[in-house]
Amino acid sequence: MLDHPSAADLTIEDMRVAHDRIKPHIRRTTVMASDHLNDLTGAQLFFKCENFQEAGAFKVRGACNAVFGLADHLMPKGVCTHSSGNHALSLSYAAGRRGIPCNVVMPRTAPQAKKDAVRRYGGTITECDPSTSSREATFAEVQARTGGEFVHPYNDPRVITGQATCSAELLEQTGGMDAVIAPIGGGGMISGTCLTVSNLAPETAIYAAEPEQADDAYRSFKAGHIIADDAPKTVADGLLVPLKENTWHFVSNHVTDIFTASEEEIIEAMKLTWKHLRVVMEPSSAVPLATILKNPEVFRGKRIGVIVTGGNVDLDKLPWLKG
Amino acid sequence: MLDHPSAADLTIEDMRVAHDRIKPHIRRTTVMASDHLNDLTGAQLFFKCENFQEAGAFKVRGACNAVFGLADHLMPKGVCTHSSGNHALSLSYAAGRRGIPCNVVMPRTAPQAKKDAVRRYGGTITECDPSTSSREATFAEVQARTGGEFVHPYNDPRVITGQATCSAELLEQTGGMDAVIAPIGGGGMISGTCLTVSNLAPETAIYAAEPEQADDAYRSFKAGHIIADDAPKTVADGLLVPLKENTWHFVSNHVTDIFTASEEEIIEAMKLTWKHLRVVMEPSSAVPLATILKNPEVFRGKRIGVIVTGGNVDLDKLPWLKG
Repeated sequence: MLDHPSAADLTIEDMRVAHDRIKPHIRRTTVMASDHLNDLTGAQLFFKCENFQEAGAFKVRGACNAVFGLADHLMPKGVCTHSSGNHALSLSYAAGRRGIPCNVVMPRTAPQAKKDAVRRYGGTITECDPSTSSREATFAEVQARTGGEFVHPYNDPRVITGQATCSAELLEQTGGMDAVIAPIGGGGMISGTCLTVSNLAPETAIYAAEPEQADDAYRSFKAGHIIADDAPKTVADGLLVPLKENTWHFVSNHVTDIFTASEEEIIEAMKLTWKHLRVVMEPSSAVPLATILKNPEVFRGKRIGVIVTGGNVDLDKLPWLKG
Repeated sequence: MLDHPSAADLTIEDMRVAHDRIKPHIRRTTVMASDHLNDLTGAQLFFKCENFQEAGAFKVRGACNAVFGLADHLMPKGVCTHSSGNHALSLSYAAGRRGIPCNVVMPRTAPQAKKDAVRRYGGTITECDPSTSSREATFAEVQARTGGEFVHPYNDPRVITGQATCSAELLEQTGGMDAVIAPIGGGGMISGTCLTVSNLAPETAIYAAEPEQADDAYRSFKAGHIIADDAPKTVADGLLVPLKENTWHFVSNHVTDIFTASEEEIIEAMKLTWKHLRVVMEPSSAVPLATILKNPEVFRGKRIGVIVTGGNVDLDKLPWLKG
């Protein structure tokens, strides 16, 4: 793998190298099922529980691939990034494991649980306003000050290649599926899924699921070019960011379709999974089930892999208990 | 195995027969760990996640052993029981799998989630007041009316033998532990744990954990005879019932010690597991962690199996969000 290849240069061999590199630092997460959720959707659902991943999110895969692939001479200044939460704490976890500094820019409004976890892993937080523009301006200042290697939360090919290891495991664990569905924010997980599934199981459909109130990927997909919103608002706080060129490459070439769900549908799906799978997942991770329930004709009778992206939730602010 | 042996007659071979009988109907549940909870306790904790079991609780093991061991001529009238919740829904699940009737007496105050699950599995509920005396009176009427085979929630040797399969799996999955700890209500899980661990790993200590506000097993253990309370009150709604002669046999002969925890300590431990293991467990299942945190000198530096007994929770009434 080149130091900074573009998305189009990535191969399935890069994914395999990444998987070997990160295996000592990640968990091979379990796949769970619920008869009740299968009855409710008419599909056979395989939930890949990345909420049980180190640092509570799939993003530790990409973060570890970037951090442990870093050249030795770059170690003293460490790494830096901006993130709505899970990439920040995943990069802090990976940097802590390698013993290098980690500086992260996070929105003031990020869940307290995610800020606490970043600090527990040894990361240093600089807060910004909850908009893409504020985040990028604050980050420019932090990067100039620290000189750390920038690991973009999703547009970095090293990160995409790390995320790609998740669906490689899911393919092995299920023995194959008719379709895989994952939430889409910036597109890192979906891009990694595309890299692996388009190579190893090209007959498997790849769907993305997005909140209606942050549906820039859906509109980009329909328009054929990237559309970015500033400061969308949704309970699915991991999905606020727009696509970038490297993730757009995968979304535009390999995604079968993108579905959206309302805030109410997302919260209902989240509560259903907590009740019937008995796992703690964050709102972003419930968007795929919400869209499966909303589009039964697409999924009925099929074997569907559902990527549960993370489990970092403020337990004092559960969305179905508001108001 | 005799049809109705006493507790003293049970052997490890009975456990093995039960395990083979119930394997098609139960899950071999996963064992989870958290670096953060290990740091917090100074111990190495292995959480045996019976909240992921069929019907959301370990009790499906004992219920399946009783139901699938039932003689064919007893099938038409089915089974009946009284239960604070998880045994009721587990017996309904088992009876549904064998296609026989199931009548259960449940306290009015049992969590709605548990009542819903009983009905979903095809069980018929008769409600009683939330006291041992009301439960037993109502049950006598139901049993007389239906003629079903009584499967006691914990004092039945068939049930104890089924519960014993849980720690057999845990011993295999961990490769051995210094101690095992489980919640104690009527003592079914602890008795099964004693049957298996005293035979297969006699050097492993067996601890029980109980709410201070329902500490009849603790007081019985210290007094050397069964003490029963009527209508104790605790957030750990699975642990309201007293020991009976068959569970007392195991508790008095094989349990190393019993520890108690306050309501606040139980709720705090429950929230810690939701946050760091990212699993949904019910309050009763958090009592062991609460007592481990309270008695660090007993557990520090040791490998501890923690049996997470169930995951049936009213998500609209989480105890840390009260008031």
